[in-house]
Amino acid sequence: MKKPLRIPTYWFVPIFLALVTGASARVGHLMPQPASLEWSEGRLAIDASFDVGITGRSDPTLRAAASLALRELSLRTGIPIVNSVSSDPGATLVLQCAGQGEQVQSLHADESYELQATSKQVRIKADAPVGIVRGLATLMQLVEFDTEGFAVPGVIIRDRPRFPWRGLMIDVSRRWIPAGIIKRNLDAMAAVKLNVFHWHLTDDQGFRVESRVFPRLHEMGSDGNYYTQQEVREIVAYARDRGIRIVPEFDMPAHTGSWFPGYPQLASAPGPFLMDRELEIRDAAIDPTREEVYEFLDRFIREMAALFPDEYLHIGGDEVNGKQWAANPKIQEFMRVHGMKDHHDLQVYFNQRLLGILQKHGKKMIGWDEVLHPQLPKDIIVQSWRGQSSLADAATHGYMGILSSGYYLDLMEHASASYVVDPLSAETANLSKEQQSKILGGEACLWTENVDMQNVDSAIWPRAAAMAERLWSPADVADVDSMYHRLKGVNRQLQWLGLKHWTSSRMMLERLAEDADPAPLFVLDQVLEPLNCDLRRQVHHYTFLTPLNRLVDATPPESDPAREFGALAAKWQTNATDLRSRLALWRDNRTRVMPLLRSSVLLQEAVPLAEEVSAVANGGLEALDYLESKRPPAPDWIDRQRALLKDAAKPRAELLIAIVPGVTKLVDAAAAVH
Amino acid sequence: MKKPLRIPTYWFVPIFLALVTGASARVGHLMPQPASLEWSEGRLAIDASFDVGITGRSDPTLRAAASLALRELSLRTGIPIVNSVSSDPGATLVLQCAGQGEQVQSLHADESYELQATSKQVRIKADAPVGIVRGLATLMQLVEFDTEGFAVPGVIIRDRPRFPWRGLMIDVSRRWIPAGIIKRNLDAMAAVKLNVFHWHLTDDQGFRVESRVFPRLHEMGSDGNYYTQQEVREIVAYARDRGIRIVPEFDMPAHTGSWFPGYPQLASAPGPFLMDRELEIRDAAIDPTREEVYEFLDRFIREMAALFPDEYLHIGGDEVNGKQWAANPKIQEFMRVHGMKDHHDLQVYFNQRLLGILQKHGKKMIGWDEVLHPQLPKDIIVQSWRGQSSLADAATHGYMGILSSGYYLDLMEHASASYVVDPLSAETANLSKEQQSKILGGEACLWTENVDMQNVDSAIWPRAAAMAERLWSPADVADVDSMYHRLKGVNRQLQWLGLKHWTSSRMMLERLAEDADPAPLFVLDQVLEPLNCDLRRQVHHYTFLTPLNRLVDATPPESDPAREFGALAAKWQTNATDLRSRLALWRDNRTRVMPLLRSSVLLQEAVPLAEEVSAVANGGLEALDYLESKRPPAPDWIDRQRALLKDAAKPRAELLIAIVPGVTKLVDAAAAVH
Repeated sequence: MKKPLRIPTYWFVPIFLALVTGASARVGHLMPQPASLEWSEGRLAIDASFDVGITGRSDPTLRAAASLALRELSLRTGIPIVNSVSSDPGATLVLQCAGQGEQVQSLHADESYELQATSKQVRIKADAPVGIVRGLATLMQLVEFDTEGFAVPGVIIRDRPRFPWRGLMIDVSRRWIPAGIIKRNLDAMAAVKLNVFHWHLTDDQGFRVESRVFPRLHEMGSDGNYYTQQEVREIVAYARDRGIRIVPEFDMPAHTGSWFPGYPQLASAPGPFLMDRELEIRDAAIDPTREEVYEFLDRFIREMAALFPDEYLHIGGDEVNGKQWAANPKIQEFMRVHGMKDHHDLQVYFNQRLLGILQKHGKKMIGWDEVLHPQLPKDIIVQSWRGQSSLADAATHGYMGILSSGYYLDLMEHASASYVVDPLSAETANLSKEQQSKILGGEACLWTENVDMQNVDSAIWPRAAAMAERLWSPADVADVDSMYHRLKGVNRQLQWLGLKHWTSSRMMLERLAEDADPAPLFVLDQVLEPLNCDLRRQVHHYTFLTPLNRLVDATPPESDPAREFGALAAKWQTNATDLRSRLALWRDNRTRVMPLLRSSVLLQEAVPLAEEVSAVANGGLEALDYLESKRPPAPDWIDRQRALLKDAAKPRAELLIAIVPGVTKLVDAAAAVH
Repeated sequence: MKKPLRIPTYWFVPIFLALVTGASARVGHLMPQPASLEWSEGRLAIDASFDVGITGRSDPTLRAAASLALRELSLRTGIPIVNSVSSDPGATLVLQCAGQGEQVQSLHADESYELQATSKQVRIKADAPVGIVRGLATLMQLVEFDTEGFAVPGVIIRDRPRFPWRGLMIDVSRRWIPAGIIKRNLDAMAAVKLNVFHWHLTDDQGFRVESRVFPRLHEMGSDGNYYTQQEVREIVAYARDRGIRIVPEFDMPAHTGSWFPGYPQLASAPGPFLMDRELEIRDAAIDPTREEVYEFLDRFIREMAALFPDEYLHIGGDEVNGKQWAANPKIQEFMRVHGMKDHHDLQVYFNQRLLGILQKHGKKMIGWDEVLHPQLPKDIIVQSWRGQSSLADAATHGYMGILSSGYYLDLMEHASASYVVDPLSAETANLSKEQQSKILGGEACLWTENVDMQNVDSAIWPRAAAMAERLWSPADVADVDSMYHRLKGVNRQLQWLGLKHWTSSRMMLERLAEDADPAPLFVLDQVLEPLNCDLRRQVHHYTFLTPLNRLVDATPPESDPAREFGALAAKWQTNATDLRSRLALWRDNRTRVMPLLRSSVLLQEAVPLAEEVSAVANGGLEALDYLESKRPPAPDWIDRQRALLKDAAKPRAELLIAIVPGVTKLVDAAAAVH
């Protein structure tokens, strides 16, 4: 489990951004925003005759992508567009691909494309099929419902990504995420042009891929939930059709607790080993001193290398605490004989051996920060959970890197926080151009301590779309208001793609309400935000068998109503009526929601939250009274409100009240009346 | 297209039912209600240690069903239940199956089971695996969230279906329904114990299954959207794991317009043939006089018989209008030579030949009413779209039958209307026991003139669950209030299974609102109901290329808020405050929704609807004023309101205002004040 230091991300906000961007030109719902965009006259009306012609090179990926686009277009518009893909240059949508695609999409795939829409036709040109796939993703977001109906507005777009590695990692080891959910997340990734799915398949808490060579890995190393090889093949093909590489991770030599119940001979400690379900990082580590281990890994990597075609294979390599190595006299003896001074040296030895195995089976290595070592070849990639400094360090030594610090979805940051994290900022900002070219991009990461198949979509989306824009769009695309506006469009789009990021929360709240009217619970929940998993485990004992069915689990990471309320409160002078109706709803919801909360064993913990929300909203209404009447409040009112807000800012039931900052603005404004 | 006569279904309501049932004993969320149920003490708390032991015979279906149940249990409760299926008799859930399953599930499969839940264990016993599958479906609905958490209450259930054929038909020819949507509908079917998926694969508007023997069938007979044989095999296996038979329909000799573009030699009229997309029933019919046709059908049926393992194959056989046969001199000559007096005789000849082909390939025949003919063997089944009288007729002659009249989902009847339609009522009520045993059950049917992949789930669910109960539960399970109460539970359950019956409407309304706040549109839409497809096409020209993206397409078949409002209005004396707040919401929504309606090319048609809803709601509020003040209204107020209600009852934009009956109750009550 890779956790960045808990430095609030706003420390990294380049303050000047707001000054140089501001409300930008019309960008519609495009996310990520293209490198260059020029609106033109005319609109192409969409009707049932919409068809596709492939005029350049044709390959199966292109035809699959065209069919997918037609299906999505039909779903998004409600217009029954037939699945018509020909080579007609007069088709409504013409795809013109100059070159052949790679057998297996690589890091160097050319994703650039040009899209031109006129009132007669849309043309997408690219040098490679994956560029066409990206252009089609743009086209899907260009579709708008204007005054005459569904149409594509006239436009010329020339687009290419800023970074070649734009990933999403999902930890499927700690909590099980079924194949169908992976597929719909691949759809969502493609919609926002993410191009690497990093599949964290193994860890202490579960070995999630079928191994036919060593079947006890998944049989004894999981709770019965794992991907069959058939499912893996389907997912790999599914991703390929969407221009997404799949990089599997087999985390070694630590995070290997799930390997040992089936194969104790790999372990550094004596067995027996049983799967356990605690959250803490385990000491379990592979024994790097035994030749048998490398014979095992050779056969295992051979099997996995055949299953996963990508050039890169992620070996993890993080958080080796060395305890089991220190406790094993044979390992200590080995280290002494080989002149290794600490467990880092031993890990370097292990990585060297592992690298040889990877190379033998045609794979390049990617690993977390800790793998970086001058003896490794320059085609390895370092994934940084520590921050820009380790990326800068790697680049200085000629190594490639990707950033994940700042992009941890499970830290429950707002989209705006991750949005301003740039792989080329802080320590990497001052690198030479040559060195900067080693920074390949970044990855949004979802660790699943507090996320499972119920709420995984909402833990990722729409926030990952903001990160996708950071990694695709030019660095100066940085208007937060525009980002949030376009995120709404992405939200709608992803629903049509089958994502449950909006509905899962409602379903989980309805479950809590059982047969009662859930509406008051919706009203309460819309002003709440969950603590991140680190803070949650400080106040509640979690294992991987802890149910995720409480209010906090149902609550999406970021409250849109609270953000909108905060924006209105900042301009209360022109929004008083609107603010009042929102505040009254939240204040008066107390009496409606309380019977539900009190009667439920799972909701009782939210009783104080409902009280606080009501009191905070009431304070906001009183503040508006003072502001509108221009009557200064009594000093003790101000003190009371500030004490109340301070108290309300504390977490309860692992939740925060997200309207506290907005109401604080109103109280501060009222306090300034004189 | 099989359309029953448009007799309002309430004609068939057995009035006495309401008298003998009334508010029944606690049945929780069980739907269909079991044949016998006895609550007992105790509760089995559900936690992460929940596991399954299979103690009797084990087979792959059982293990698959157990894993599916654990997955659903985990999703429904938010408790991370591991996928643990063993043979442990001490497991939390023990499945004890006495006999082996059929190789291919038949009409005679034994679906009976016993379920006993105590505070320690749940035991499901059955003679056949499919009985266990049904018991598991019951268990899923027994799970409740009580004052202590998620649990299964103590209970003894002995259950068996009333009818062996409980089907759902989906027409995938007219509008394309992708494989994933079929699968989730199979999940929903299994949840309510439906056991036959009747797949209407071919019709004039599309040939939707891949034929490798005659590939021009799907290539030229579809818009590019069809199921590959691989998809068919997956769906057949998926259904088998859920105890569902799949009966494919290849509608012949009429409804074959999609066969002829690829194979004009089958047709009764000279070509050339092109796919067309008009709604009307076509004249296209196979030429039954040519031997070449039977050679073709022999090879085609051989291929399909291998693909679809069920013992029955549906040959359609409906709506042969005989026009092309009458216009073809060679066919006329054939009829004369063979002494056939009309096209019915020719269809009988065709059916006889087709029957021989079916039998050669090991299949029994099922067809719509029209196929019934004394020369056919007694193992054929007649599916009645005409009503109980044709079933009675068939049974009298020793033929088996299933009822679909009254179960047409596209007629947009309320769940309560279909709920009271009993296969053993009206003409079939007076048959002998022996004859009644020929009535095998029924099928809910969805024809897709006005339904496509966007809204297919809401066109089927939850209404089909009420029909499922009619076909499974004892005839005296007929309490409509109880049915609606339990339907709510089914609604929630189906969401966890991935159905979009609740969310699709919201998504379609959000699409209409584009970037505007969709809330006023939700408020308007909740009191509306769509016309059925027959009435819709009277006021609007439809083809199969007509977009389904208007307000009427987004509106679910039955308005729950309107039904609840009607129930409250019937007892206005105790509900005045509640009624007022609802009516005020609907009245005042006019000003909020109007800008949205006026600005949208697709919503403009709803402007008069919004006016009417507001006026109707206002009338309801005024009626309450009179009622609560006990002040008689002036006669002209009464006249005005009645005229208004009469006008408001007319369809607008193919929608009806569903609160008109409720407000009428209030106005009538006010008119009676004196």
